[in-house]
This record gives sequence, C-alpha cells and structure tokens, in this order.
Amino acid sequence: MAESQLIQKIGFVLLLWFFSYNLVSAKPELGWSRKAAAEAEAIALIYCSGHGQAYIDGNIVDGRPSCECNTCYGAPDCSIFFSNCTANAESGDPLFLEPYWEEHAASSAVVVAGWHRMSYSTTGENYITIELERHIRMLHFAVGNAVTDGRFIVFGAGSTQLLYALVHALAISHNSSLPASVVASVPYYAPYRGQTEFFDSKVAEWRGVTSEWVNSSKASSNKVIEFVTSPNNPDGLITQSVLNGSSSIHDHAYYWPHFTAITAPADEDVMIFTTSKLTGHAGSRFGWALIKDESVYNATVTYMEMNTMGASRDTQLRMLKLYKAMLAEIQREGDIFAFGYKTMRERWSKLNQVVSRSKRFSLQKMTSQYCNYFNTTRDPSPAYGWLKCEREVDRDCDAVLRAGGISGRSGTIFSGDQKHVRLSLIKSQDDFDQLLTKMAALVS
Amino acid sequence: MAESQLIQKIGFVLLLWFFSYNLVSAKPELGWSRKAAAEAEAIALIYCSGHGQAYIDGNIVDGRPSCECNTCYGAPDCSIFFSNCTANAESGDPLFLEPYWEEHAASSAVVVAGWHRMSYSTTGENYITIELERHIRMLHFAVGNAVTDGRFIVFGAGSTQLLYALVHALAISHNSSLPASVVASVPYYAPYRGQTEFFDSKVAEWRGVTSEWVNSSKASSNKVIEFVTSPNNPDGLITQSVLNGSSSIHDHAYYWPHFTAITAPADEDVMIFTTSKLTGHAGSRFGWALIKDESVYNATVTYMEMNTMGASRDTQLRMLKLYKAMLAEIQREGDIFAFGYKTMRERWSKLNQVVSRSKRFSLQKMTSQYCNYFNTTRDPSPAYGWLKCEREVDRDCDAVLRAGGISGRSGTIFSGDQKHVRLSLIKSQDDFDQLLTKMAALVS
Repeated sequence: MAESQLIQKIGFVLLLWFFSYNLVSAKPELGWSRKAAAEAEAIALIYCSGHGQAYIDGNIVDGRPSCECNTCYGAPDCSIFFSNCTANAESGDPLFLEPYWEEHAASSAVVVAGWHRMSYSTTGENYITIELERHIRMLHFAVGNAVTDGRFIVFGAGSTQLLYALVHALAISHNSSLPASVVASVPYYAPYRGQTEFFDSKVAEWRGVTSEWVNSSKASSNKVIEFVTSPNNPDGLITQSVLNGSSSIHDHAYYWPHFTAITAPADEDVMIFTTSKLTGHAGSRFGWALIKDESVYNATVTYMEMNTMGASRDTQLRMLKLYKAMLAEIQREGDIFAFGYKTMRERWSKLNQVVSRSKRFSLQKMTSQYCNYFNTTRDPSPAYGWLKCEREVDRDCDAVLRAGGISGRSGTIFSGDQKHVRLSLIKSQDDFDQLLTKMAALVS
Repeated sequence: MAESQLIQKIGFVLLLWFFSYNLVSAKPELGWSRKAAAEAEAIALIYCSGHGQAYIDGNIVDGRPSCECNTCYGAPDCSIFFSNCTANAESGDPLFLEPYWEEHAASSAVVVAGWHRMSYSTTGENYITIELERHIRMLHFAVGNAVTDGRFIVFGAGSTQLLYALVHALAISHNSSLPASVVASVPYYAPYRGQTEFFDSKVAEWRGVTSEWVNSSKASSNKVIEFVTSPNNPDGLITQSVLNGSSSIHDHAYYWPHFTAITAPADEDVMIFTTSKLTGHAGSRFGWALIKDESVYNATVTYMEMNTMGASRDTQLRMLKLYKAMLAEIQREGDIFAFGYKTMRERWSKLNQVVSRSKRFSLQKMTSQYCNYFNTTRDPSPAYGWLKCEREVDRDCDAVLRAGGISGRSGTIFSGDQKHVRLSLIKSQDDFDQLLTKMAALVS
C-alpha cells in the first residue's frame, strides 16, 4: 500500500512536470513558418568540409542541395584540394565576412512570408522602406563615417546601379549644357568608364582622366562629373576631389572601419555606399546614395523609377535584419568592424611579410592612423593589394602572376599600367591562403 | 485499493502519452531560425481588421510594426472606413493574389540565413540561379504559355529593367546602323516611350506609333524595334507584331491564365515575363526574358552586368520558393491560376454589370475563348477595364471619373485619347469594392 502510494505520488509529480514543461516553460509551437525554418536548418547542416556551403537554392544532387565548393576544392563534400590550381584573387567578392554572419545566425536570419510586401509601394516615398532608411542613418552616425543630416537617401541595386544613376542625374540637373564630361583619376574602378561608354547616352560622355582637366579651359566650358573613390579601388589610398567647381560623385564603398581609419564623417554633396563592402552581401545587390541637392535627388529618383522601380523590397527586408543585427553589438568587442579589421589587418600583414622577402614585387605603402571609430591608432587593412612588378623584365605583371598560379586583375583594367596588378584580399580564407602560398613560391 | 490502482493506471497511461508526444511524435526543436520564425508569426497575427497588413519592416508604433491600411481605411487597426474617399484604380498593383499566398503560408515562406549567398556569383552563369531557371522553364511548360526550348533566359529587376535592356541589346546587336527606331501601337504601356526618351541613348530613339511605319520607306532604312504587348496593357486585347522584318519585343506580362485564355505557347524571338503579374509580387522586382538569338542574349547580359550585376540573389531565392509552391499544385483544383481567374472573372463581370446599366460609359468588348490550360472555354477576365466615356460632353473621361470619386489612369498616359481611362481590377478586394460602389453611383 505504501509502495503503491509512492508510485502514485511519483506518477503525479512526473505528470505535473510534463504539464508545466509543455504548457508553461516550453516555447510556443510554431505554425506556418516551421517547415521553412526546419528546411533552412537542415541545409545549414550539410557538411562541406569547411571549404564550401550548401544553400537552399543550390543545385539538387541526390535529392538535396549540393555543396558549392570554394576555389580549388572539389568532391561532393569539398574535401579534395587541387594543389596545382590557380589562386583566384580577382573579384571583390567580400566573403571575408561570411564567418561573422555564421556566428550571428539567430540575430541575422529573416523569415519572409509568402504575402510579404507584394505591393509596389512600401512605407516611404520612392520605394524606400522607412525603417531601413532610419537604420542606415543610425549606422552612419554610430560609425561616424558620413554626415546624413540634410541628405536625401536613394536605394539602388548595389552601388553599381547608383553610380550611373548619379552620372545621369548630375548631367541633367541644373539645366547645364549636354553632354556632361565624366572623368576619374587613374587608377580607377573600371565601371565608371565602362558604364558611361556602354550606356552611350547623349547626356554624358567619358572624357578620360581627371588630371588632364586641371587648369584646362575645357573644364569651364563643360559640366564635369568627377568620380572620387575614397579609399580608392584598387590602391586603398584616401583621395579628394581634384577639380574645383565640378560635380563629384564620392564613392565611399570602402570607407568603413574594416578597411581604413575613420578620420572624419564624409560630408560631400553626393556620396555612395554599398552593403557589399559593409556587411559582405554582394549578391543581395543593395547600395544607397546620400544626396544633398533636391534637384539631383529628384533626378536620381526618376532614374530609379525608369530603370527598376526601386530596389527589391525582399532585399530591403533582409538588409534591415542584417543592419539591426550589426547595430545591436556595435562598438562592443567583436562587432562586425572589429571582426573585419582583425581579418583584413592580418591578411595585409601576412601578404606584406611574403612580398617583402624579395625585391621582385612591392605593395602600396600604407601607414597607421588614428581611427575615431576604434578610438585608437590602427594598422592598415586595405581591401586590395596593389602589387607592382619591380623588375624591368616583368613588363606584364599580370602575366608574371598568372605564370606563378595567381589570377589577379591587371592594372590596365583600372586604366593604370601593366606593371601593377590588383590582388583581392577580401575573399574567403581559402582564397587568401592559396594566394599567400602561391605568392610565397613566386617570391622565393 | 481498487480505486488507487485505477488512479495509478490512469497516471501511467497519461505519462506514456506525454512521453510519446514529447519524444516520438514531437517535431524537432529548432535552433538559430526559431527567433526569426516566431517574430514573423507574431507579426502576421497583428490584427488589421481585414483592411490592412503589418509587415516585419513596417513603421514601429508602440514597439511593434504598425498596420498599413488599404486605401480609404484608417485607425491603428484599420477599422475605420472613410466613405467620401476616392476609389483608387490607378496602379497595376497585383494584390488580388495576396489571399492566395495567405492560404499557402507554409509552402511559400522562406528562411534566409544571414550567410545566404553573399557572393556575387551563384550556381549559373551571369548571376542566374540554375534551380530558379529550371523552375521557370517547368512553369512555362506546365502552363503552356511560352516555348522555352532553344531560348536563353536573363533575369531582371522586374520586366521594367528588361524592357530597356532589350531595346539596347537589339539596337547594338547585328552591327546595324544606329540609332534604332523604337515604336509601339496605341494604346501602349507608357514606360516603352518613357524609358527610351529618358535614358536618351545614342543607340535607340523613340519614333512614335507602329502604324506610321507600315508600308513606310522609313522602315527599310532603319532598324525598327517594335513593342508588342499581348494581352495588351491597357485594353487586354491579343496583339501581334505589325511590322515585317522588325525586331520585336513581346511583352507577355499578362499572358497567364489569370487574365486570358492560353491558346498556344508564345514562340517569338524575344519574350518578357514578370512575377508581378504571375504571383503578384510586384515589390520583389523580378522578371525574365526568353531570348532566341545568342548575340542578343549576350548584349542583354552585358546590359544587366553594367546596370546592376544581375537580379538580387535574395529575391531569386524567394522566387524559387514561390514557384515551387505554385508548381506543387498546378493543374489541381484551387491552383493559383484557378484562383486568379475566378477572382478576375468575377470582378470583370461585376464591373460590366454596373457599367451596362447606362450608356454613359462602355468597356472594351471581350469574348469567351477556349483555354488550353483549363481545357475548357473560359470567360474574359482582363487585368484592366479600358473604360470609354460615351457622351460627347464628357471629353476628359479621367476628369469625369475623378469628379465621381474614382482615380484611374487617363488614356493619354497610354498615348491614347482622353475619352478612355484605364481602371485597374487587380488591386485589393477593398480597392475593387470601392471602385464598384463609386462606379454604380456615377452610372445611376
């Protein structure tokens, strides 16, 4: 009897525990989103040996998305390394930030309902989500890299779309005589010229390098649109507008603490930023322009309307989630900029160590600088190495590197000389490791 | 004793049930995606009285996203109807499909991990996800509305981006003399002209209406690019290319069973489709072109590269999920086309009933037709009413409607006449109901 009562009591205690577990302390049961969430988590668990990723929309092999292996890795699980493979240091694919987001999985994930924002219109004017605009302004304020007060914001499909939208907008605003002349200082990011020539508009023409327009009579008779990239792509140097009285487009894609010291908030009339070099989400195609003048803003808005009717609202939703996650730990230890700076400084330092072992190659000179964001002096950590072949015989530096198993981007692509090659340092760790190995072999 | 044994037994049975519920039949516990999933579900539960929606990236009021009310509804929960408010039948905002996606919440939701496809590159060439391309081809095959064999596919930010990309591509391919002449048949979708004039390129010029080029000597000396929209926007009529030997861009945005009978797969050299009028996701900015000629394809790809470096990969992921959900029940009762057709047919029928009560207005004549997709004769269900003011005194039909509390889109916007106004039938049910009410008052 006593035994049976004991069993009975234990039974009731267990029952109570199960009740409380299920009804009180348990997390609420998910409904319609559970299937998608479970799918995403299952795919995140697909093993790619640390040298690749599987994505929900990957190619299906054996009924599930297959691993997409990093350069020089193969096999279904990316476990095989091809040692005689060329190190790829070409594109500005910002995968160095991928580990940051893997570490912040819970705060950066977003669930998009099937009926999410189907409409053309959203909360703000001109296809802009107000909450995202607000977070972008908060971000600039927190980082101290740009003045947003008194600026309009336009969203675009990456800085790519905005670069030419602004050429067009600056050309047609203020009733200036057309075509406007578009210029940049060598070495410069190739699309400035490429877009202006390809779109072949009556409103703007590519007219070569900025230096030729200094003290030139040409400048006074034409409207000149000057691209100013700071830090510069490819060489990472801080630059300023050269032509007085020109309309400048300040491309600040790399003006984040990952890559350079933040010395003062940028305060120009037209500034462009992109999430590609901020959060590392190049594939999302999202960037924004800060514009002071209302007529230039209106002309840019019209361009966006005619071109794509604004930036994808799906992407705007994801960006908001990413920026919220970033802002939640900004200025704390291990925030995205501390992570980015640490990674990039280490890569730059290692590349310098290898290159300095001989006099065959040299890299651009960069110095430590006080950074207002980190409140301390910081080492250089540029996005690219601007490598020079020092030997006279190595006329085509790109060919020299390719022969050594490294594909970079020739200086000629930046309208610079053949003696230079841009080496991307912002790709995956695998890409960087391979670059370093091949570089070490070339130097020795 | 018997009683105590009974309680004991009941206790054990309950215990067993709880064990099995928790350990066997219970769904696996979610990890990093749970927070985002719970957030999305909580926001979906925000009550907006059936006259609005709350979204994750909505404006924050009292700590949570606020309801975004449909036209003519207000208050924090959208419960107040403003009866003297103007019915808005202007834009082609395809919200008539919103209820379909709400009913398919589980199959259409997508979870985007923070590290999802950060790279520029994806599984296919030219920024295209192969799985999405494959599903688009499956969709065309299942619906029977376009031949995709032997066609290249290019993705764009809505058909908007592709329309002009193809003008540019057709103009510069095949080494033809420039500028090419761009034309369309009245009434036509305004951006054809708007884009060509605004982008103001040396490669293509707007040269007016197609009919002026028939039997004209102009046609032989110039490359002519003819826009052919079928079903036509605004009037829903089936159209064909008029000029022999021209390069045609066939805009098939509305060639889906929602809006028209599928009589044969479209088989032109250049065809454009958009998700906006297929799934109703206008805000996602996603469309595609089917292109037969490789040089035209290559020129289009270059345009996309220069303009935006492809369509957002985030959006491509979401589209894949939506298309999979659509395809999973295609040709079954209640599939998206049955839903879309039912809704649009009913709206068209109701509008006709109201309009036919007087001779003041008329609508375009549409007939029933055999549809290969539904395997039966189907009634008309166009996306827009192309309303005509029949009375001589009603010269400006748009003004007449506005005086009656209806804002449509004047025929002049489509380079048509003032006697016509386009009334959008594809917006939300609230929008349609208001249109009908105001129309009934106008007619009586």
